[in-house]
Amino acid sequence: MTGTVHLVGSGPGDPELLTVKAKRLIEDADVVLHDKLPGPEIIESIPEEKREDVGKRAGGERTSQEEINDRLLELARAGKRVVRLKGGDPFVFGRGGEELAYLRERGIPVEVVPGITSAIAAPAVFGIPVTHRDHASSVSFVTGHEDPTKDESAVDWEALAATGGTIVVLMGVGKLPEYTRALREAGMDPETPVALVERGTWPDGRAVSGTLETIVSVRDEAGIEPPAVTVIGGVAGLYGEGEE
Amino acid sequence: MTGTVHLVGSGPGDPELLTVKAKRLIEDADVVLHDKLPGPEIIESIPEEKREDVGKRAGGERTSQEEINDRLLELARAGKRVVRLKGGDPFVFGRGGEELAYLRERGIPVEVVPGITSAIAAPAVFGIPVTHRDHASSVSFVTGHEDPTKDESAVDWEALAATGGTIVVLMGVGKLPEYTRALREAGMDPETPVALVERGTWPDGRAVSGTLETIVSVRDEAGIEPPAVTVIGGVAGLYGEGEE
Ligand SMILES: C[S@@+](CC[C@H](N)C(=O)[O-])C[C@H]1O[C@@H](n2cnc3c(N)ncnc32)[C@H](O)[C@@H]1O
Ligand SMILES: C[S@@+](CC[C@H](N)C(=O)[O-])C[C@H]1O[C@@H](n2cnc3c(N)ncnc32)[C@H](O)[C@@H]1O
Repeated sequence: MTGTVHLVGSGPGDPELLTVKAKRLIEDADVVLHDKLPGPEIIESIPEEKREDVGKRAGGERTSQEEINDRLLELARAGKRVVRLKGGDPFVFGRGGEELAYLRERGIPVEVVPGITSAIAAPAVFGIPVTHRDHASSVSFVTGHEDPTKDESAVDWEALAATGGTIVVLMGVGKLPEYTRALREAGMDPETPVALVERGTWPDGRAVSGTLETIVSVRDEAGIEPPAVTVIGGVAGLYGEGEE
Repeated sequence: MTGTVHLVGSGPGDPELLTVKAKRLIEDADVVLHDKLPGPEIIESIPEEKREDVGKRAGGERTSQEEINDRLLELARAGKRVVRLKGGDPFVFGRGGEELAYLRERGIPVEVVPGITSAIAAPAVFGIPVTHRDHASSVSFVTGHEDPTKDESAVDWEALAATGGTIVVLMGVGKLPEYTRALREAGMDPETPVALVERGTWPDGRAVSGTLETIVSVRDEAGIEPPAVTVIGGVAGLYGEGEE
């Protein structure tokens, strides 16, 4: 009998932000395949004998997507109840769509279980709403992984700037100088508020803020490291507002 | 002693998509203020004596935001543990930012508890990933409430079209003809896949699909009603793919 693969979002890291369903599926699973992104608290709460870390290989390299796909297939064909646990939501820059397609094409039953994305939750716990009547009638999530100076970059920073909405960049710590420059060149006000939220909802989570012009130095002084999201737009100016 | 207000996301409607934290806070609350959006299953699971529906007034009108703010303040000042339960995530078109600011300005302790937004989860349970390597390196959430033909509309459909990413429209059943036209006029391919997901994750949830050109008739034939999200872009073409 073929097993089922549950493609489960872990949320941003706080174990209490797991869904009731994610918690149940993890408890009932035979195997939980995960990488580092769900964060230490959630990972350590899973019994060691059923965890399988696919975030890195013996040699220190990352497991390739092909290897992960093959492992999921192998476990499902062996009749296992498999949880593929992904940081945040499986369908927000999580390659969940690819895993879903790969398994379904091979006749494996897959259930998708949404999780809370860090793109919304990491800013939220620091008082930053991604949408707001007075500031943003849209919000865009975008990968900061691609080099905006390269022609083949699929991200159109000019169009994103023109939306007038909030921009949340994931995987965007390293290329912060490049895309903040691209946004300024696209005509965004250099005074636009920007916040960086590192490990949002983790015990050691923190946020810093600045503007489109200053945020690179703010990042460097604070030593912000991945995982972090960059929030660009008026709502980032609400960070810390009215807090005791 | 002043009470605390917890601004809690209920997720898209499936009670198992509540977070562990939301469940705990609802159980411990003195009062839960809610409207209809969390859906019947979640609302009916809350003991009736502590539920307060602020979605409508005796006369059938909606309670104004001012009245909700005042009620939250009153309850907190009376020392109550208050849960303000919002459909989806409190900070995604939920006016959570306004409630947060209003209460904090008045010295009320507020905790924000993210929930799973329908913008991601409703498409996800029908196999539609909002981002995908082959289709979308960004996703934008936008309100469809504003009339795109009016000058004061804050939504720039042309810029959204130009991002090349997925567009998810909330509150966008009624104005579907207007904004699909605006997107075509902005140069988007009329063959672009579009899906409508109604009551995603509810027991009677359903999805239909078409293109930027056909979706209005698809909506009318199926009789799609709010709450529903509109997903526009290549990923909408994955709806139903590979499913048994
Ligand atoms: C490969 S993407 C996966 C995103 C994930 N699927 C989600 O929905 O949150 C990894 C990126 O997510 C963001 N991220 C994940 N967890 C985070 C957290 N707790 N705080 C801030 N950013 C986080 C960072 O931008 C990181 O580079
Ligand atoms: C005022 S907005 C609030 C959105 C909410 N805060 C969220 O994050 O999902 C209401 C809109 O959310 C969308 N919505 C909420 N629940 C939904 C569901 N279960 N399925 C589809 N759309 C839903 C619809 O577009 C609806 O018009």
